[in-house]
Amino acid sequence: MKASLRTLVSGLLLATTLLSLEAKSVEAPLPDAHALGVLAEQYAHSSFPLLREILSIPNDANNPADVEANVVWTESAFAKRGFDTQRIATAEAPLLLATRQHAGADKTVLIYLQIDGQPVDPSRWFQASPYTPALKQRDATGDWEQIPWSAIEDYDDEMRVFARSASDAKGPVAMFLASLDALAAQNLEPNFNIKVIMDYEEELGSPNLPGAVTENRELLAADMLIIFDGPRHITNRPTLTFGARGIATITLTTYGPVVPQHSGHFGNYAPNPALRLAQLLASMKDSDGRVTVPGFYDGIRIDDATKEILRAVPDNEEDIKDRLQLGSIDKVGKSYQEAIQYPSLNIRGMQSGWIDDKVRTIVPGWARAEIDIRLVLESDPERLINLVKQHVSAQGFYVTDQTPDKAMRMAHEKVATFTYENSYQSFRTDFDSDVGRWLRSALQRAFEEDPIQIRMSGGSIPISPFVNTLGIPAVTVPTVNRDNNQHSPNENLRLGNYRDGIRTMLGILTEPL
Amino acid sequence: MKASLRTLVSGLLLATTLLSLEAKSVEAPLPDAHALGVLAEQYAHSSFPLLREILSIPNDANNPADVEANVVWTESAFAKRGFDTQRIATAEAPLLLATRQHAGADKTVLIYLQIDGQPVDPSRWFQASPYTPALKQRDATGDWEQIPWSAIEDYDDEMRVFARSASDAKGPVAMFLASLDALAAQNLEPNFNIKVIMDYEEELGSPNLPGAVTENRELLAADMLIIFDGPRHITNRPTLTFGARGIATITLTTYGPVVPQHSGHFGNYAPNPALRLAQLLASMKDSDGRVTVPGFYDGIRIDDATKEILRAVPDNEEDIKDRLQLGSIDKVGKSYQEAIQYPSLNIRGMQSGWIDDKVRTIVPGWARAEIDIRLVLESDPERLINLVKQHVSAQGFYVTDQTPDKAMRMAHEKVATFTYENSYQSFRTDFDSDVGRWLRSALQRAFEEDPIQIRMSGGSIPISPFVNTLGIPAVTVPTVNRDNNQHSPNENLRLGNYRDGIRTMLGILTEPL
Repeated sequence: MKASLRTLVSGLLLATTLLSLEAKSVEAPLPDAHALGVLAEQYAHSSFPLLREILSIPNDANNPADVEANVVWTESAFAKRGFDTQRIATAEAPLLLATRQHAGADKTVLIYLQIDGQPVDPSRWFQASPYTPALKQRDATGDWEQIPWSAIEDYDDEMRVFARSASDAKGPVAMFLASLDALAAQNLEPNFNIKVIMDYEEELGSPNLPGAVTENRELLAADMLIIFDGPRHITNRPTLTFGARGIATITLTTYGPVVPQHSGHFGNYAPNPALRLAQLLASMKDSDGRVTVPGFYDGIRIDDATKEILRAVPDNEEDIKDRLQLGSIDKVGKSYQEAIQYPSLNIRGMQSGWIDDKVRTIVPGWARAEIDIRLVLESDPERLINLVKQHVSAQGFYVTDQTPDKAMRMAHEKVATFTYENSYQSFRTDFDSDVGRWLRSALQRAFEEDPIQIRMSGGSIPISPFVNTLGIPAVTVPTVNRDNNQHSPNENLRLGNYRDGIRTMLGILTEPL
Repeated sequence: MKASLRTLVSGLLLATTLLSLEAKSVEAPLPDAHALGVLAEQYAHSSFPLLREILSIPNDANNPADVEANVVWTESAFAKRGFDTQRIATAEAPLLLATRQHAGADKTVLIYLQIDGQPVDPSRWFQASPYTPALKQRDATGDWEQIPWSAIEDYDDEMRVFARSASDAKGPVAMFLASLDALAAQNLEPNFNIKVIMDYEEELGSPNLPGAVTENRELLAADMLIIFDGPRHITNRPTLTFGARGIATITLTTYGPVVPQHSGHFGNYAPNPALRLAQLLASMKDSDGRVTVPGFYDGIRIDDATKEILRAVPDNEEDIKDRLQLGSIDKVGKSYQEAIQYPSLNIRGMQSGWIDDKVRTIVPGWARAEIDIRLVLESDPERLINLVKQHVSAQGFYVTDQTPDKAMRMAHEKVATFTYENSYQSFRTDFDSDVGRWLRSALQRAFEEDPIQIRMSGGSIPISPFVNTLGIPAVTVPTVNRDNNQHSPNENLRLGNYRDGIRTMLGILTEPL
């Protein structure tokens, strides 16, 4: 979609129409898809400078100065828009709570925004700096070419802004601020109160969030939680995501001789730790990728109604297989959507001795596997971790959480060091909950189509502390393009998604609750 | 044993006694243990400068200039001692053949010496340079303290020379040259001809040796082969080793998604290559370390007579377990000596994704195992490698020697890349062979005790090309201390072993054949 002077003018005309609605009137007709589209177009344009500005502030949560600069910027941005802001102190980075009450509102929506970004390796970015946003479009050969920022005045949906956090997740922060401005200019207000909770440590796994939520239960009290984060379904159609898997991690180490030994002298004598680890790992799953640890899938039932909802997601699995170059897939579920309704047990890293040009002819001293377990609502993390631990023990290993000393090594045939971290649990909200119905209605009005409904995303976001501690349902409203290079060099945000993100948020903010 | 002026004087007196033996006389009584001991003591002293000199020449075979310097030095050293020298050209480093005929001799002994050393990391050596030999003794706390070279004049058996190749294997080269000098000074000659073949690429796996032996079969013709290399039995008593395992290596790679994927989005869907590798490796051996690949141990029979010989080796397995901190051992054989009579299949390295502080929450793109197979005489390397390959195939993998392209990945449920290198085969000489009897007699005379006889060492040396191509038996005569840090930083040679090595070689050179 080209933004031309003509559409801008027609946008202004329609904005005038919107102005004629009485503010806060619930009787007045709600702005329709066309009106919201025009308004989004206008405020995408007017907020590009704000988007550039927020993306220009480095935001590596490992750097306290970065955190502070972003806290200050967001404090100011929300204060300007009539919010009361309050820092919630933690052992490390603070959280920021911004609150705006609306006259006559009796419900409160808590909105989660993530401000920090993954660390950057500037040498791998094709621009001056990951913190100097670059506007790019594809050239005739399909490569991204940088173009002057002035070109944004007549932008094309397919143009993209390249910068760290463009999509994950400062883009959505800019969309939300732009939506607030658009509403204010129309003299419109939501009919619910807003609390915005901002996280400056999401990419570190939000280590201080659960404690802060527990300690500030009353301050954060709300009726529901919306998360503006993540990419839309791969079709790039409006999407609602009702849950996310949680995550726990295990580090598992097996032992051979106390220091590596010559494999000629000790092959067939000193036990090989890589073999022991391989045998342990192999015993945990079958050749189709199903976990064989007894009890791992207990309590999970995908009923027919749920299967229907999963089937309704327009995935193109042949395309996934082609893109990932897979000759087969794991058989945990009958489809991609079904697979991610189950907890996973994934070997994310494994090492023993050396390979390739560093290879040495040794019996290694140890072997280590890094495992991540993606959790679903039915899988209590402590229970799953204990099942895996008991399984290791049942394979004849003495299990410890320490590096074994000589006495421990010699007292047991096999020793394994097993440590774990339970990061956060899954959450999952019913499709037919109040928040589900409300958001579905908002998106239907904004886009004149039913949103794609994802029961649960495979990845993990630190939302369960809100859900479990505050006792409120949560739904994620993703807006950005899926091919955004999230966490990687050359992260980007498609401008069509930026505008549609504003349209999405306008739909929600104007939807009566 | 302290070398004092008194022992030196008595040594000279005994040397005079030796001089009274008629050169080359077979009727004259052979020098006894005491005489050989005194002579070895004298020539250990007089050859220390030569030992320092040879250890001062860098000898990393990856560096052609190093190779050339060592070839030149050894050419000169052997020419000075009456040998004809001849370079045998190969595609890379030459071999050097040094020949000395002795009047009346009708047999020829081929002697294998290794000149090159493992690469060095000087930062990990506790001395100025790995190529600047340092004399050290233990201080009161048991740490090695460097002492002036002048201290060697009154050396102690427990002092050590620290330098790359001190033990592996320039120490034995210096011992051999010193032995030749000792004999010449006594006007004694062996009653056999000597061919010395020098290898400058042993630490690279002697890639050019097999071809050179084949091409120079007549030049190298001899009745038997002696290898002056390796450490004595751990008791440090006189040792003869009648064989060594061979070695072949396999690199095995399994595949997941073509590039690593987010483990949240694709855990339970994209197959995990580390799991696939673990399952493959686990299927190759049982939990006691025995290879379960069908046919792997075919043809190997350890009869009662052999078992008796194996039992006669004074191993202290409790001590090995204590030193390696092993709570259990593999159950391939009933003892250490029995275990190394079998081929081994050892995972020397394994990797997939990242561990520790580099860990990423991904489904990795690939997983790799580096495997070494130690071979025994009964195990044809090609046969064993094919058994392993067929086993991988039988686990449902399409086996290729290439990195699979997209079409190959998508055409098969599972793909494994399997490449191998067949370095060299095992050799094993009968205890009751001529060379066995002859060497046993020489060592019995030199030390007044029966040498420890090792049927086969676990490690590999490139001797099978001589044995198989020249059709001659081979025996290794090890001399150095076992705790010499071979291949590692701070390699060293115990001076008591240096002197006893000369005594060993004097025993052999004076033993009638």
